[in-house]
Amino acid sequence: MGGPGEQLADLGEWELLRRLAAFAPEGQFEDDAALLSETSGRQLVVNTDVLVEGLHFSDATMEPADLGWRAAAANLSDLAAMGCRTVVGLTVGLVAPASTPWPWVEGVYRGLHQALQRYGGTLLGGDCSGGAQRLLAITALGHLGLGPIHRSSGRPGDLLVSTGPHGLSRLGLALLLGELAPGAVTQALEARAIEAHRRPLPRFDAVEALERSQPKGQPWRVAGTDSSDGLVAAVASIARASGCQALLDHGALPLDAELAGLPQGEAWCLAGGEDFELVLALDPAWAEALVAALPGASLLGALAAGQGVAWRQGNRPFPSACAGFTHFR
Amino acid sequence: MGGPGEQLADLGEWELLRRLAAFAPEGQFEDDAALLSETSGRQLVVNTDVLVEGLHFSDATMEPADLGWRAAAANLSDLAAMGCRTVVGLTVGLVAPASTPWPWVEGVYRGLHQALQRYGGTLLGGDCSGGAQRLLAITALGHLGLGPIHRSSGRPGDLLVSTGPHGLSRLGLALLLGELAPGAVTQALEARAIEAHRRPLPRFDAVEALERSQPKGQPWRVAGTDSSDGLVAAVASIARASGCQALLDHGALPLDAELAGLPQGEAWCLAGGEDFELVLALDPAWAEALVAALPGASLLGALAAGQGVAWRQGNRPFPSACAGFTHFR
Repeated sequence: MGGPGEQLADLGEWELLRRLAAFAPEGQFEDDAALLSETSGRQLVVNTDVLVEGLHFSDATMEPADLGWRAAAANLSDLAAMGCRTVVGLTVGLVAPASTPWPWVEGVYRGLHQALQRYGGTLLGGDCSGGAQRLLAITALGHLGLGPIHRSSGRPGDLLVSTGPHGLSRLGLALLLGELAPGAVTQALEARAIEAHRRPLPRFDAVEALERSQPKGQPWRVAGTDSSDGLVAAVASIARASGCQALLDHGALPLDAELAGLPQGEAWCLAGGEDFELVLALDPAWAEALVAALPGASLLGALAAGQGVAWRQGNRPFPSACAGFTHFR
Repeated sequence: MGGPGEQLADLGEWELLRRLAAFAPEGQFEDDAALLSETSGRQLVVNTDVLVEGLHFSDATMEPADLGWRAAAANLSDLAAMGCRTVVGLTVGLVAPASTPWPWVEGVYRGLHQALQRYGGTLLGGDCSGGAQRLLAITALGHLGLGPIHRSSGRPGDLLVSTGPHGLSRLGLALLLGELAPGAVTQALEARAIEAHRRPLPRFDAVEALERSQPKGQPWRVAGTDSSDGLVAAVASIARASGCQALLDHGALPLDAELAGLPQGEAWCLAGGEDFELVLALDPAWAEALVAALPGASLLGALAAGQGVAWRQGNRPFPSACAGFTHFR
């Protein structure tokens, strides 16, 4: 579609929209808004994320298709973190200077489309505008599975579960930025870390495992969030919303063994961010059943009366600066 | 909420989100995504619009609360243009430099909230980010009424209906920018034009009138769009999607009598944009019933075999440059 030297200024808005419509079902871009197909009777969940060039992404560390995938995956991860099992689709607000090359835009939409093909749902529509910097504003819609996941549903005595390891995405970023010398980690770990950074996976499969592992007769009560802002930030937000203290087992951090050997390993596990795993607080029987049912999932601590986050082993200092990235400061 | 000199840099992201949560139902901002209340069984419609400072809005012509209202109204107008009668709510992606004053953000959200209070629905959630320029990415959700409105549903013989006058918003902008000398229009028209520009009204009432005026036994078939990009752009998009020609009656333009007396009056009516009226193509009986049922609505022409837009009176030249605003050029 189009020559490699084409810019948005050469296309104009209507030709751009015509080309982008190829990523959506036929006729989807023709009207003022998107009409969703018949409702399923299940509750709908909606999430909006904004990704700004220079803050959330950079051409230096990923291809346009990776950015599109990541943008979709980050948004879909928020749906999974609410208890969604199925994706309805997403809308995309694209802002870009007129000098933006068309192949960049096409690559971003190809990545978005790849994520939708993998997780279901369609490109529902959106809007395009000029602007000073490249930016994506994505709204994702999904249907709830058996029940919702709220940050505030935790109780003292719940066990904390991570659906996978943490710190890999940050390691991948470090490798892509040249913060680590080549050969600092094995090729196998390097490949996994870069893939984790460029192509994160929203954990709808973990929601499915959560549903399958619900102990018989136990009511639906699941606290949780995703770890997009970092593992400790996720745990802290559950503790705060639930009015509990979170106690982490230092020996049970969800940390790859090789990554644990790096000086930065523990800090990246705790606060690297963008691993997009689910962090859950569950009744102990359910937590143990989930860990048994879901390969890669592990227990990492518990909720207790109190507030904040601390090591369960009281004599070990808790690292500061684990609250995750914050804008405007 | 907060002092007048506060900037987003003083607040940080979490305090900003805490303050913005006051505009949403309690607890709405606590989770990763928004859980919509039980589905009504009606079809859902979703729309995303991006508004960029300097392109779509300017502090020179409106207060922050006007901008918030306009942003919501523009998005809700797209829902009405699809046949929605009720609003579920909206999500807001806010991008702003760290130096942005908090009162500006508060004003924008106050305006958004005012629009939601008037038209129903709630602030469902959103995202905030730093960035080079101020920008709002809004996604609105609504429920369809009796049937959908598609641009492509028109047929030769349909009559074209406008739900209200055109050109007022552009006149208001001209007055605010000082393009017109003070006293160029009466005070009454000046007030109406500035209000039309700052506080446009999505025409859910027109959708209701459309439903009420459907002739008995006539199937639901409604072509239409809103006139956010201008009256001729709206008519042209219906004609194109429906595979028809649109013929406009020069003597029946939906144009305020006083505005018609200005040299720019006709051009602003045809291409001023942002009037946010509905432009519909309907079977003649339905079109006439709607005009009878809805004060301010009028017939302005018809669809015929062919393509493009022209005057029904063939000897009158059709003004160029009526296609509406286009980005990137």
